[in-house]
Amino acid sequence: MTVRAAVAGASGYAGGELLRLLLGHPEVAIGALTGHSSAGQRLGGLQPHLSPLADRVLEPTAPEVLAGHDVVFLALPHGQSAAVAEQLGEETLIIDCGADFRLRDAADWERFYGSPHAGSWPYGLPELPGAREALRGARRIAVPGCYPTAISLALFPAYAAGLAEPEAVVVAASGTSGAGKAPKPHLLGSEVMGSMSPYGVGGGHRHTPEIVQNLSAAAGERVAVSFTPTLAPMARGILATCSATARPGVTAGQLRETYEKALAGEPFARLLPEGQWPATAAVYGANTAQIQVALDEATGRIIAISAIDNLTKGTAGGAVQSMNIALGLPEETGLSTIGVAP
Amino acid sequence: MTVRAAVAGASGYAGGELLRLLLGHPEVAIGALTGHSSAGQRLGGLQPHLSPLADRVLEPTAPEVLAGHDVVFLALPHGQSAAVAEQLGEETLIIDCGADFRLRDAADWERFYGSPHAGSWPYGLPELPGAREALRGARRIAVPGCYPTAISLALFPAYAAGLAEPEAVVVAASGTSGAGKAPKPHLLGSEVMGSMSPYGVGGGHRHTPEIVQNLSAAAGERVAVSFTPTLAPMARGILATCSATARPGVTAGQLRETYEKALAGEPFARLLPEGQWPATAAVYGANTAQIQVALDEATGRIIAISAIDNLTKGTAGGAVQSMNIALGLPEETGLSTIGVAP
Amino acid sequence: MTVRAAVAGASGYAGGELLRLLLGHPEVAIGALTGHSSAGQRLGGLQPHLSPLADRVLEPTAPEVLAGHDVVFLALPHGQSAAVAEQLGEETLIIDCGADFRLRDAADWERFYGSPHAGSWPYGLPELPGAREALRGARRIAVPGCYPTAISLALFPAYAAGLAEPEAVVVAASGTSGAGKAPKPHLLGSEVMGSMSPYGVGGGHRHTPEIVQNLSAAAGERVAVSFTPTLAPMARGILATCSATARPGVTAGQLRETYEKALAGEPFARLLPEGQWPATAAVYGANTAQIQVALDEATGRIIAISAIDNLTKGTAGGAVQSMNIALGLPEETGLSTIGVAP
Amino acid sequence: MTVRAAVAGASGYAGGELLRLLLGHPEVAIGALTGHSSAGQRLGGLQPHLSPLADRVLEPTAPEVLAGHDVVFLALPHGQSAAVAEQLGEETLIIDCGADFRLRDAADWERFYGSPHAGSWPYGLPELPGAREALRGARRIAVPGCYPTAISLALFPAYAAGLAEPEAVVVAASGTSGAGKAPKPHLLGSEVMGSMSPYGVGGGHRHTPEIVQNLSAAAGERVAVSFTPTLAPMARGILATCSATARPGVTAGQLRETYEKALAGEPFARLLPEGQWPATAAVYGANTAQIQVALDEATGRIIAISAIDNLTKGTAGGAVQSMNIALGLPEETGLSTIGVAP
Repeated sequence: MTVRAAVAGASGYAGGELLRLLLGHPEVAIGALTGHSSAGQRLGGLQPHLSPLADRVLEPTAPEVLAGHDVVFLALPHGQSAAVAEQLGEETLIIDCGADFRLRDAADWERFYGSPHAGSWPYGLPELPGAREALRGARRIAVPGCYPTAISLALFPAYAAGLAEPEAVVVAASGTSGAGKAPKPHLLGSEVMGSMSPYGVGGGHRHTPEIVQNLSAAAGERVAVSFTPTLAPMARGILATCSATARPGVTAGQLRETYEKALAGEPFARLLPEGQWPATAAVYGANTAQIQVALDEATGRIIAISAIDNLTKGTAGGAVQSMNIALGLPEETGLSTIGVAP
Repeated sequence: MTVRAAVAGASGYAGGELLRLLLGHPEVAIGALTGHSSAGQRLGGLQPHLSPLADRVLEPTAPEVLAGHDVVFLALPHGQSAAVAEQLGEETLIIDCGADFRLRDAADWERFYGSPHAGSWPYGLPELPGAREALRGARRIAVPGCYPTAISLALFPAYAAGLAEPEAVVVAASGTSGAGKAPKPHLLGSEVMGSMSPYGVGGGHRHTPEIVQNLSAAAGERVAVSFTPTLAPMARGILATCSATARPGVTAGQLRETYEKALAGEPFARLLPEGQWPATAAVYGANTAQIQVALDEATGRIIAISAIDNLTKGTAGGAVQSMNIALGLPEETGLSTIGVAP
Repeated sequence: MTVRAAVAGASGYAGGELLRLLLGHPEVAIGALTGHSSAGQRLGGLQPHLSPLADRVLEPTAPEVLAGHDVVFLALPHGQSAAVAEQLGEETLIIDCGADFRLRDAADWERFYGSPHAGSWPYGLPELPGAREALRGARRIAVPGCYPTAISLALFPAYAAGLAEPEAVVVAASGTSGAGKAPKPHLLGSEVMGSMSPYGVGGGHRHTPEIVQNLSAAAGERVAVSFTPTLAPMARGILATCSATARPGVTAGQLRETYEKALAGEPFARLLPEGQWPATAAVYGANTAQIQVALDEATGRIIAISAIDNLTKGTAGGAVQSMNIALGLPEETGLSTIGVAP
Repeated sequence: MTVRAAVAGASGYAGGELLRLLLGHPEVAIGALTGHSSAGQRLGGLQPHLSPLADRVLEPTAPEVLAGHDVVFLALPHGQSAAVAEQLGEETLIIDCGADFRLRDAADWERFYGSPHAGSWPYGLPELPGAREALRGARRIAVPGCYPTAISLALFPAYAAGLAEPEAVVVAASGTSGAGKAPKPHLLGSEVMGSMSPYGVGGGHRHTPEIVQNLSAAAGERVAVSFTPTLAPMARGILATCSATARPGVTAGQLRETYEKALAGEPFARLLPEGQWPATAAVYGANTAQIQVALDEATGRIIAISAIDNLTKGTAGGAVQSMNIALGLPEETGLSTIGVAP
C-alpha cells in the first residue's frame, strides 16, 4: 500500500517533524505541502534539515490543493482545522495536530479558547484504555497535545487501576520548540539559554482540560490536576514530573506491577527498569515515552515521571502512529524507538 | 573594618563563587586559599575567571594554614568540616557551605548521610523567621543547601501564616554546577545539553530533611515534603515549583498580602509584581531570589515559585550575606541584586 | 564627582548591559531611560534582571528627555545617533554604542551602510596605540563594534610591531545577544541551541571595514582582512581566532615579548600565561579580554586568539571604560575583571 | 544479504552511534558488543537511547568474542586496533573508527602519536578522488577523523581543480561529543555551556597531518594547513570554516562550477544553493555534509564552509557508508540525509 499524504502547515515545527518522519515511512508518498505566509517559498530555505524536499515549493493551504490525498495532516493554528476538514471528503483521513477536536466538553473548549467548540474526534493516544480500538479505521483523528501525551502516559496506569487519589500535581519542563516557530522576544536564544521559567501558572495552560479529560476517563471519576509548565533551555523534549497521593494500602510492588501490566507490549511507552529514570536526551527524535514510577514512602505519594520528544511522540510521531492504526498498517511502521544521543 | 578571610576548598564551584564575591567585598581581604588534590597549583589554571587571583597558589587544607583569619569559609565535601572547625579558635567566624551542621535532628542526619551527627549551627537563611537574630554575632554558621534556600523562600510565608496544609509538593530544576566539579559521566556537557532528567526521586535527595526542617519550623507543625530534583541543561540556577493545598477559606488576595508582608524589606528575596514569573536568567550571578505566588482556584492549591542562582544566593552569596550579619556589617555589603542577563 | 547619565535605548541588550554596569558605578547617577516602542513601559517587565530599576518607566527618545545629563549613552539602531547628538549641547558627553561614528572613511560607510556618512568620533578602544590620549576630555565617543574589539585586541600588537604580513584571516564565534533583541526566526532558541552557523561570509559583515581600519592604523599600511563571523549556541561571548603569516625571521620568543609589552599594564586586556587559552566563559559579564598568541612553526602563521563578553568589553563595558577616561576618572571605576563562571 | 556485525567499544559515543545506525540498517544483524571497563554491564544503563538493545550485556573486547562476524567495527582508544585486527581473519571486514590506520606517513604518525606506526588502510572518505574505488571489496577500512572529514569535504574540490594556493587556514568548532565520554573536568556541562574555547592551537591537534594528507593528495602538491579546533557548547556537530588564497584569475563562477561538478551525484555531500550557508543543526544525526563556497573579492580568498554531525558523517555514518561500498551494497543503505531539527 502506498498512501499519498499532504501536510498543511509544512513550514512550522510540527510540519517539519511530520515530513521528517513521513520521508522515512515506507508506505507514504509525500504530496502537497502548504503554508500560509510561506506559500511560494522553497522548503529548503525554511526547513534546511529536510534535504530530500529542498526544492519543493509550498502551496497555499486551500481545499483544491489538499484534495486528492489519502491522508491530510493539519498543522495549523487552532481554530482553522474545522473549515479545512469540511471541504475534504469523508473518505480522506484527516489528522489534526492542532487543538480543535481534542476536547469533548464544549464548555471546557470555550473557557480556554474563547471560541465555539468544533466537536471532538477519535483521540490519538493509542496507549490509553480503549483508544486504539477507536482509531482503527477512523477517518478523523485528533492528535493529543504534547504535555497531555507525556502526562497521561505517566499517570493513566495509576488512575486506571484505582491506585491514586483524584488530585494530581504536575510540573513539566518543555523544550522551546513546543512554543512554535513564530518569533517572540521571550523565545529568543539569548533569553532561553541558561534559563528556566514557568508560564501559564495556576491552571491557565490550555492543555490543562485535556489532561483532566484523560486522567478522569482513566479513573472513572473527575481528577483535579494542578499543572505548571516550565520552559527549559533545550530545543526538544518534555520531562513531566507527576504525583498523586496513593490510595490507602497501595504498595510499591503493586504499583510497579500495575505499570508493567498497563504498558506491557506497548511499542512506544516503555517502563524503565527499576532505578533508571527518564531523560529527554534518550528519546531525542524517537517516538518513545520513557516512564518510571515510584512510591515515596515518607509522603505516601506516587511519583510518575515520563520523558518524550515533544515533536515526535508529542506531536508528529504520535500522529503517524495513529495514522498507521487507522490505515491498518503495523503500528511501528516508519517510527523509531531509538533516540539521537548524546 | 577589614576582615581577613580564608577559603578552604577554593578550587571547586562553591569556592570559586565565594572568591568572586569576596573580591568585590569592600571589607574583606582574601587570605589563605586551600585545596586538597589541587594544593600547589596556580588558581589561574583552576578558576580562569578570577583574574585578580590568577597567580595565587593553593595551599593544603590544614589548621596552620587556616589559622589567623577572622573568617574561614569551608567549601569541603561533607563530613570534613567538624574536624577543621575544632582546630580553629572560637573567636574565628567559621562559615560552612557544606551540609554538616545544617540539620538539627541527629536521626535525620544519620539516615541521609550514614555517619554520626556533628551538631547544628545557626542557620544562614536570614529571611526565615528568627534566623537573622540568631546570626547576629554568631561565630559558627551553617549555610543552607541550594534547594532548601529556593524552596524555603518560596513556601515559608504561606506556612508561617498558616495558609497551607502541611503537605508540600516540590519539583525543582537545577543547573549542573549544583552537582559540583568532580567529573562524572552523567555531568558531561554531551550528556546534559539538551536533556532534562530527575534524580533522587522518592524522597532520596539529602536536601529533603532540611526542607522539611525549615517548613515545619515555619508552620509550627510537621510538614511533609515530596521533593523531586531535576537536572537542567544550564550551568547555574534553580527554579523551584512548589505547591500545597490552601487551608479552607484562603483567598488569592490574602495570599498575596501575606507574601508582601513576609518579604517586605528583604533585600534579597523579591516578590515579583503580579503577572510576572521568576526566571533563573534574571538572577544569574545575583544574590536575589525572585518569588511569585498564585492560588489555583480549580484545585485549591497555592503555587509558589522561586528562582535563584544556586551558587550565589544558593551558596556563596547566602554565605556572605550571613557573614555580613554576623559581623555587624550592612547586610547588602558586597552583594548585588542585579543578574547578568541575557 | 557624580555624573548624571541617560541611556537612550534602554530596552535592548546593549542598554540593559549599560544599566547593569552603571548601577554599580560609584560616580554615576542614572537619569532618563528612553525607548522607542517600549516607551511608557516599566523597565521591570523588559529587563527583569535589573531589580533596582524595576519600577522605572521608559520615556520616549526625545531631546527634551535627554537634555540636562552629563553623559548620554546612545544604544540606538544605526543612522539615528547623529540627529540625537545634534540636539544635545557640546558639553554633554555623548557615547554612541552604535556604528554611526566609527568609520573614518566615508566611502567605507556608504558601501556597507548605504546612507550618508555622519562623520567620525574619538574611538573608544583605549588599548589601541594613541586611543587613550584621544579619549581624555573627549565629549563624543564612538564605541567600537563587538567583533572589532575582540579582533583588534588580538592582532594589533603583531601589526604595530611589524611582525605580521598585511593579510589577516579571522573566524569569530559570537553569542546570540550580539544579534540583538528584535525577534527573528533564525535567532529563536529552538534554532540556535545545538547549532553553529556562519553568516555575512565573504566580507559582507559591516564590522569588516572597522577591523581593517584598526589593523591598518596599527600596521601603518593597508591590512586585508578575511572575516567570517559565526553564530554560537550561547547568549554572550565572542571567541576570535585570528591569524596572519609572520614576517620572515619572527620567532616565538619575539612574538610573546611583543604581546607582553603591548599589553603591559592594561587593566582589561590580559595576555594569558603560556599554554592557557582564552575561553568566553571566563569573561562572562567581565570587562576583560583574554588574549593568547602562538607561532605555528609548520605554517609560519601567527595565531592570536581573544575572548570577550560581547555585551561587556564588546559594548557597554568598553563604553564605560571610555567614559571614565573622558571624565578623568580612574579607568577601572565601576568595571570588573572577574567573570561569572562556571 | 544479512551481515553480522560486532562493535568493539560499544559503551562510548562512537560505539553508540554505530549501534543507532546499525539498528536501522536493513542488511545488518547486530552481533557481539564489547567494552573494557563496561564489560558485564547492561547496555541500557550505558546507552539509554538504544532501547532495542537495552538488555544486551557487554562482553570483553577479546578475539574469541569478535570472531565469527562478517564485519567488526572498532571504536577503541588509539593504539589498540592493530592487535585486535591481527587476530581476526583476513576475510573479516574490519572498520577502524580510531586513528591507527589513517596516516600513510610513518613519521607523521610517530610525531603526533609517539608510538610505532601500524600501517595504513583504505581510507573511508568515499567523496575524495579515487577513494570510492579503493573501498570496493576492501576488508580493512580506516574511518577518517571527524575534523578531517568536514575539512576535506569543504576544500578538496578547490585543490583538486588547482584553484587554491597550497596554504589553507581552518578554524573549526566541534560539539563536545567529539572529545569522548571519559569524564574530564573541562568537558563538564558546567564548563562547556556558554563557552567557546580553542585547543591544540598552533598545529598541535592530531588531526592536522590527516588533513594535510588529504588536501595534498587532492592538490598534487604539499598543502600547508593552519588548523585551529574550538570547543562549542553543543553535543554534536562540526562547523569548519576553511579558506585559501585563490590562484590568480579564479572567478566566483568558476569556483561554483567546480564545486558543483566535484559534488554532483554525491549522496552525502551536498553543495547548498547560493546564499544558503551550512548549519550544524540541519545535519543533526544525518550522514550529510552541507557545503558552501564563496570567493571573497576583497581579499581574493576562497571561503569554503562545511557542517557535519561529528558522530554521524564524521564517524559512525561514514563508517557505515564505507561498509556499504566495501560489501557492494547501495551506498545509502541504512543512512539518512535528514537532520533531526530544530
